[in-house]
Amino acid sequence: MNLRLPGPIPVPEPVAQAGAAPMINHRGPEFASLIQRTTEKLKQIYLTKNDVLTLTASGTGAMEAAVVNFMPPGSHALVITIGVFGNRFKELVSAYGGIATVLEFNFGSAADLGQIKDALEKNSEIKTVFVTHNETSTGVTNPIIPDLVKVVQDHDALLIVDAISSLSSVEFRTDDWEVDVVCSGSQKGWMTAPGLSFISVSEKAWKRFEENSQPRFYFDLLRHKKALADGQTPWTPAISVWFSLDKALDMMIEEGLDAIWARHARAGQRVRDGVRAMGLQLFSQEGVESNTVTSITVPTELDGLEILKIARERYSTVFAGGQAGLKGQIIRFGHLGYMPDSDLDSALDALRNTLVDLNFKA
Amino acid sequence: MNLRLPGPIPVPEPVAQAGAAPMINHRGPEFASLIQRTTEKLKQIYLTKNDVLTLTASGTGAMEAAVVNFMPPGSHALVITIGVFGNRFKELVSAYGGIATVLEFNFGSAADLGQIKDALEKNSEIKTVFVTHNETSTGVTNPIIPDLVKVVQDHDALLIVDAISSLSSVEFRTDDWEVDVVCSGSQKGWMTAPGLSFISVSEKAWKRFEENSQPRFYFDLLRHKKALADGQTPWTPAISVWFSLDKALDMMIEEGLDAIWARHARAGQRVRDGVRAMGLQLFSQEGVESNTVTSITVPTELDGLEILKIARERYSTVFAGGQAGLKGQIIRFGHLGYMPDSDLDSALDALRNTLVDLNFKA
Repeated sequence: MNLRLPGPIPVPEPVAQAGAAPMINHRGPEFASLIQRTTEKLKQIYLTKNDVLTLTASGTGAMEAAVVNFMPPGSHALVITIGVFGNRFKELVSAYGGIATVLEFNFGSAADLGQIKDALEKNSEIKTVFVTHNETSTGVTNPIIPDLVKVVQDHDALLIVDAISSLSSVEFRTDDWEVDVVCSGSQKGWMTAPGLSFISVSEKAWKRFEENSQPRFYFDLLRHKKALADGQTPWTPAISVWFSLDKALDMMIEEGLDAIWARHARAGQRVRDGVRAMGLQLFSQEGVESNTVTSITVPTELDGLEILKIARERYSTVFAGGQAGLKGQIIRFGHLGYMPDSDLDSALDALRNTLVDLNFKA
Repeated sequence: MNLRLPGPIPVPEPVAQAGAAPMINHRGPEFASLIQRTTEKLKQIYLTKNDVLTLTASGTGAMEAAVVNFMPPGSHALVITIGVFGNRFKELVSAYGGIATVLEFNFGSAADLGQIKDALEKNSEIKTVFVTHNETSTGVTNPIIPDLVKVVQDHDALLIVDAISSLSSVEFRTDDWEVDVVCSGSQKGWMTAPGLSFISVSEKAWKRFEENSQPRFYFDLLRHKKALADGQTPWTPAISVWFSLDKALDMMIEEGLDAIWARHARAGQRVRDGVRAMGLQLFSQEGVESNTVTSITVPTELDGLEILKIARERYSTVFAGGQAGLKGQIIRFGHLGYMPDSDLDSALDALRNTLVDLNFKA
């Protein structure tokens, strides 16, 4: 199967095999060395000197950690959403007693900085701003993060970014951009199986933590920070996934971050060009297309679920469909992490053949 | 290394290798088949027809799920503790706004049913009772669960049991005993790497869920139940660990539950006999010793941390030390899941040789 999802992604064989290594004591010196090593390497990819903590949970766990550690209950928050994963922050803020102002932009578009400024000006009580960097559900990368930071800082608020499906694949500069809290997850550009997620925490975010009375335990980041100082995690970690992550980080650092970003930019272009050449249209607006996932509008005469089924059953290629309201409306073609050009090309062939089978004429 | 911890435990090679299989779509038919298969097999080991949900989190995540799903904030709870993991329920109840009556028994002892009855009689408002079945930190199995159920039912309360380090290894009958909520974790008798935890939920517990206003999201069990009906999880699951779990469950079901329980009883006896023959004393009281972990009192003239260090460095054997107040006071020798007799015997040899090196005379 050619797995062309925006995560989980194909895990390179050496990374998968690393996960099968003999089990170790999570309270012993081998694990201490492992967590210190992976944390240092994660910081190199995050481009940060902030704390980076690794949680045994999927990306949504890191998003929940961001909310319960840094958003006081009953406080005002601005949620900027351009898709399903932005909406997840909306649900989380609401679940944990935040008072949310929600700025929802058309799916397929990026967020607009002017409207964000207006929303902040209208509500001086907003203390926390949530935004998705790369919206997996629509194939859009929000280009505004560096400018958004300044706006949020002027408002004296904290900025929390979901960079789950972008960080490590496309440009993201945690410290240069001065982003307070950044979430990511192992099954994306990190080329590892799902099960671990990451969260970076600035000094300013730690101050907010101290003032925040929100109940928390499993995701209490201060427990994670203290345990890390002893080379441990507060709760038993997903050791086999951690072994794999260690190997994947070595491969990433050997390749180099600039080279990885350039490779993803080329992959995004290759897929977009290929898709357009079939006479299909992109769902994402021009100029804000993601370099980790391409969203393709299903032509009105075709059935999106049928396309997925034929591609999988006849051409051994797994694309993702649309989520929530976009079900059946779009096809999502993932291109992040480990992806030889040959895999991208054969997935393009699979899509082309599927369209032929369905008698699609551009 | 001979890993003799009470979890994580050595993962059999076929189970470890299963985890390195090619990645799959967590929203596709392969995962739907996987989760339906593992859930059915988990129910066979849990001996239950109740829902059994699998979380991408360590055992503490399942404990947190039990608290946030079934203990309303501001409600009264009884926490029965005989060690560090019982105390973890105390911390969780307190973190999530419960009003806890704590019955703490001497570490090394089991809980006393008479005192539990008294505590319940004194407080008619107690709605939830928390107890540890097998206390990993002290090597004690609480034998009272079936009787405790009746007492808790008479009180019209809900019983939540941490069976993380016992279920699948020693006798536990979820339905026959009528236990409402039971937690376990993949890195224990389940012979799998850490990263997944399990929680069973009775009809009565689901009714409590409906009345419970506690905020929750990642661990919201109704979301997990609904997703399971579609062959999915609400958030991306730890797929590689899940592959391993599937294989481990096959091995367990092939061996048979009675045979597994008998094997653990023999292993516990073998280790206790071996330890006593060295002139060492058990920390756990006679009659309630755990068959998954043996706790050994460090002789006053010796240093517990030194014993661990020598066993590891000279004899390639990893025992666990005491946790919290028991640090340096006890050695914990794990014998659960995959453990050929030869591994137990060589670990006993390692301990014996360590004592010789330290000039210990019984």
